[in-house]
Amino acid sequence: MYNLLKGKKGIIFGALNADSIAWKVAERAHQEGATFVLTNAPIAMRMGEINKLAAETGSEIIPADATSMEDLENLVEKSVEILGGKIDFVLHSIGMSINVRKGLHYTNSNYEFTHKGFDVSALSFHRVMNVLYNKKAMSRWGSIVALTYMAAQRVFPDYNDMADNKAYLESVARSFGYFFGRDFKVRVNTISQSPTPTTAGSGVKGFGGFLSYAEKMSPLGNATALECADYTITLFSDLTKKVTLQNLFHDGGFSNMGISDVIMDSFMGADE
Amino acid sequence: MYNLLKGKKGIIFGALNADSIAWKVAERAHQEGATFVLTNAPIAMRMGEINKLAAETGSEIIPADATSMEDLENLVEKSVEILGGKIDFVLHSIGMSINVRKGLHYTNSNYEFTHKGFDVSALSFHRVMNVLYNKKAMSRWGSIVALTYMAAQRVFPDYNDMADNKAYLESVARSFGYFFGRDFKVRVNTISQSPTPTTAGSGVKGFGGFLSYAEKMSPLGNATALECADYTITLFSDLTKKVTLQNLFHDGGFSNMGISDVIMDSFMGADE
Amino acid sequence: MYNLLKGKKGIIFGALNADSIAWKVAERAHQEGATFVLTNAPIAMRMGEINKLAAETGSEIIPADATSMEDLENLVEKSVEILGGKIDFVLHSIGMSINVRKGLHYTNSNYEFTHKGFDVSALSFHRVMNVLYNKKAMSRWGSIVALTYMAAQRVFPDYNDMADNKAYLESVARSFGYFFGRDFKVRVNTISQSPTPTTAGSGVKGFGGFLSYAEKMSPLGNATALECADYTITLFSDLTKKVTLQNLFHDGGFSNMGISDVIMDSFMGADE
Amino acid sequence: MYNLLKGKKGIIFGALNADSIAWKVAERAHQEGATFVLTNAPIAMRMGEINKLAAETGSEIIPADATSMEDLENLVEKSVEILGGKIDFVLHSIGMSINVRKGLHYTNSNYEFTHKGFDVSALSFHRVMNVLYNKKAMSRWGSIVALTYMAAQRVFPDYNDMADNKAYLESVARSFGYFFGRDFKVRVNTISQSPTPTTAGSGVKGFGGFLSYAEKMSPLGNATALECADYTITLFSDLTKKVTLQNLFHDGGFSNMGISDVIMDSFMGADE
Repeated sequence: MYNLLKGKKGIIFGALNADSIAWKVAERAHQEGATFVLTNAPIAMRMGEINKLAAETGSEIIPADATSMEDLENLVEKSVEILGGKIDFVLHSIGMSINVRKGLHYTNSNYEFTHKGFDVSALSFHRVMNVLYNKKAMSRWGSIVALTYMAAQRVFPDYNDMADNKAYLESVARSFGYFFGRDFKVRVNTISQSPTPTTAGSGVKGFGGFLSYAEKMSPLGNATALECADYTITLFSDLTKKVTLQNLFHDGGFSNMGISDVIMDSFMGADE
Repeated sequence: MYNLLKGKKGIIFGALNADSIAWKVAERAHQEGATFVLTNAPIAMRMGEINKLAAETGSEIIPADATSMEDLENLVEKSVEILGGKIDFVLHSIGMSINVRKGLHYTNSNYEFTHKGFDVSALSFHRVMNVLYNKKAMSRWGSIVALTYMAAQRVFPDYNDMADNKAYLESVARSFGYFFGRDFKVRVNTISQSPTPTTAGSGVKGFGGFLSYAEKMSPLGNATALECADYTITLFSDLTKKVTLQNLFHDGGFSNMGISDVIMDSFMGADE
Repeated sequence: MYNLLKGKKGIIFGALNADSIAWKVAERAHQEGATFVLTNAPIAMRMGEINKLAAETGSEIIPADATSMEDLENLVEKSVEILGGKIDFVLHSIGMSINVRKGLHYTNSNYEFTHKGFDVSALSFHRVMNVLYNKKAMSRWGSIVALTYMAAQRVFPDYNDMADNKAYLESVARSFGYFFGRDFKVRVNTISQSPTPTTAGSGVKGFGGFLSYAEKMSPLGNATALECADYTITLFSDLTKKVTLQNLFHDGGFSNMGISDVIMDSFMGADE
Repeated sequence: MYNLLKGKKGIIFGALNADSIAWKVAERAHQEGATFVLTNAPIAMRMGEINKLAAETGSEIIPADATSMEDLENLVEKSVEILGGKIDFVLHSIGMSINVRKGLHYTNSNYEFTHKGFDVSALSFHRVMNVLYNKKAMSRWGSIVALTYMAAQRVFPDYNDMADNKAYLESVARSFGYFFGRDFKVRVNTISQSPTPTTAGSGVKGFGGFLSYAEKMSPLGNATALECADYTITLFSDLTKKVTLQNLFHDGGFSNMGISDVIMDSFMGADE
């Protein structure tokens, strides 16, 4: 619509289906003039419909397990080759808790599951940046964004070990972002998005009720996947070159609310 | 009970009646072996029962309008004289919004009221420290504490301009705390306390309902005035000498909650 | 360049001269297709060269003292009239400390100066939003931005009472932002910008040295006034509709640095 | 000195030698009337002089690898037996990065090392609480404290993956602290301590220079290990019952400094 990403080249992780934020980011990036490679875990791709998105946006797909350095090296090398130059933007939208999937309560974790979820959800971001950094694959003033959630700062009991993984992920954004900024002028940020009815989000217990709660707490209501994509585009554009090491709340104001009138009224009714 | 403040000398602002946090701090400071001067605005003293507290704790009362430099200078000079030496601890527990009292909505402030409330609630903390600093009235490793509320960080719609005043107050704690630390090794902190059913707190619209909401959100429940006094004593003691420029939440965990199970259940019921 | 603000109408406070961030915002907003009214305090306009900017961007100028409700009401009414409809975006870039100007140290404030500076720098933001809110002058999904500085969170000794004013300003953004969001779907945010060599910034003692320090601490270096304008444009655009109540650091990463290698090396040299 | 922990029972992890913060906490807890069990990794105990501390404080030692559920279960069971009742306080002071030890730069991590360091430094805190929670081994109103460092919030380049581990640890404190509070009225907090010349701290590159930098940045100077122990005692005492889910900076004010006069002067000298 605005040509904000005209000529820019990217890699987008995590477009599972049309509900995914990464899917919307791909569509919007395409509209804004970018070319990019789509990637996902081989197993996620079997579940997903990513071919449709690839066709729609003229993109190639390179499967990669984000916990495999070999896969990531292959991904980055091929992407640079396919796109014809260094990478301008990367979206990391990867998260999964086996403890959640298996219905294990936070106070009763299986630590093998915790390690595996940590590797997929948090450490993968370090791995991705490691490969991009050491292969010098990012353009100067490029932009790397990972999606996160406010459970990294505050307690949402059903978010389980994903909360801790997101805290680690946000720390990696700062830690690696420093070196990426210092050495390549690349910025690294996280977007802390409203609860969003994606395949991943919907796995959390009581998600529907929580969605409604967040909607009523936020003065502008929850941010949608499409709105998140719009916001992500601004962070990939040349208009935000000096924003780095930040965790940016995109949530209709939820993060800075103590209580809203609507929640108060709803609670008062419930309380009587 | 522990002699934590044995031999320490203090000034306590804001003990209005037995519900006041400052009242409890005075009682606890007395039990811990401190001597101190009680002070309050002349007008608040007419409403209060501070004489009872003075008798109970063997304290003298020196009225002072915290917006009057003359009153504050008199207070500090006399306190040093009465207590027989420099001041070890100060509690600032002063807050008042005329906009709230007059029922003016935040979007419809009377700015004379805003200025007056700002002077009483926020700037008074600067004035108090100004006098203590310039009269060199604080002992080395002394401790200054002001009470605040989380509306300084997040939106509580009925808290009105007190929210903004508390944000200013917390900033003054940092700004003046730097100079007090650098020059006199005095620490300055704020305690951000749970909503508390004091005379001041109860003035806020819908306070009862909010109290119940906060109780259900906080894993340990709301902190009481007496518990706040206990916590304040630790900050006046020699065990916290290197804590400074901090805003310390004393709230049963509320500040770091996104949602609790109890609130979620209550909300889900209300929602159906 | 991108038509990001095509057809949008705005009011821009604080364009003093070509160094001002507000000046750059005006130029960039013009390039992006917006029309707007320029405003400044009558006294600032005598110092400034705002006519040049008005000519360049095809804007009208309406002088307004941001501490006068009458002036602000006139400004908003006339702006809606001139622009032919409700306001889509507002930039508040106003700040001034008389204590700083008069060389009074923070520990030795003149409280009349403090009140006046507070009115101009902090309360003015409430006043501006009050008028816009009560006149229902903002479009749905409009955007209000105020410029601030990190001294609101951390101690920069020479920033004096401007630090506390900025803390208040940021609180007003949240407090009023809630009502603006709830009732009109308008977002309100602050941008916390790198130290910038504007007329206002340069008034701070030791500014040159501090600029160099911040440059060396920030992995991407300091953000310039023009870069700040670019970032502001994204916040005025339709791509950031669900970002509200936020304080957004635009500072090359400074805010999340503990120490950089360059500062460490420089310090180690100095220390020997 | 004050009998603050009279009759309280505890478990203290991580007393390696007389420089360790945990060592000082043990000494101070003993002085305040507590009894406790000392524990450390078997390998750390070979390096340490913990027997001396045990003799001095009348404590038993139970070796435990904090990444082994079996060891932790044995530790908790035996501690309850030895101490004659449930546990009132726990100190977690465990941290180690193999990447740091092996001299691997953050941008060049060995991910097996990262996983191992994560397990020891961060996940161990979850494991410890898991065992205490599921064995119902904590007394009501008990207190759990872990030591952390500000690299969890801001970039300190040489802190390597310990920064990310500390971010995870602090998140675990909130996540598990919620359930511990809700179900057992136990509070969980982290203390974010000044850089401290312990065996662990000294392993970080350029530690001496950084210590001096932090000293000059902090208005009260760096907090010592003994001061940290004093502060920890207050968090174990009954005076802080409603403080939970918090990360508490104990750092002479460093965390809220933007710049100090001393650093500015030192930097200006260096710059010329």
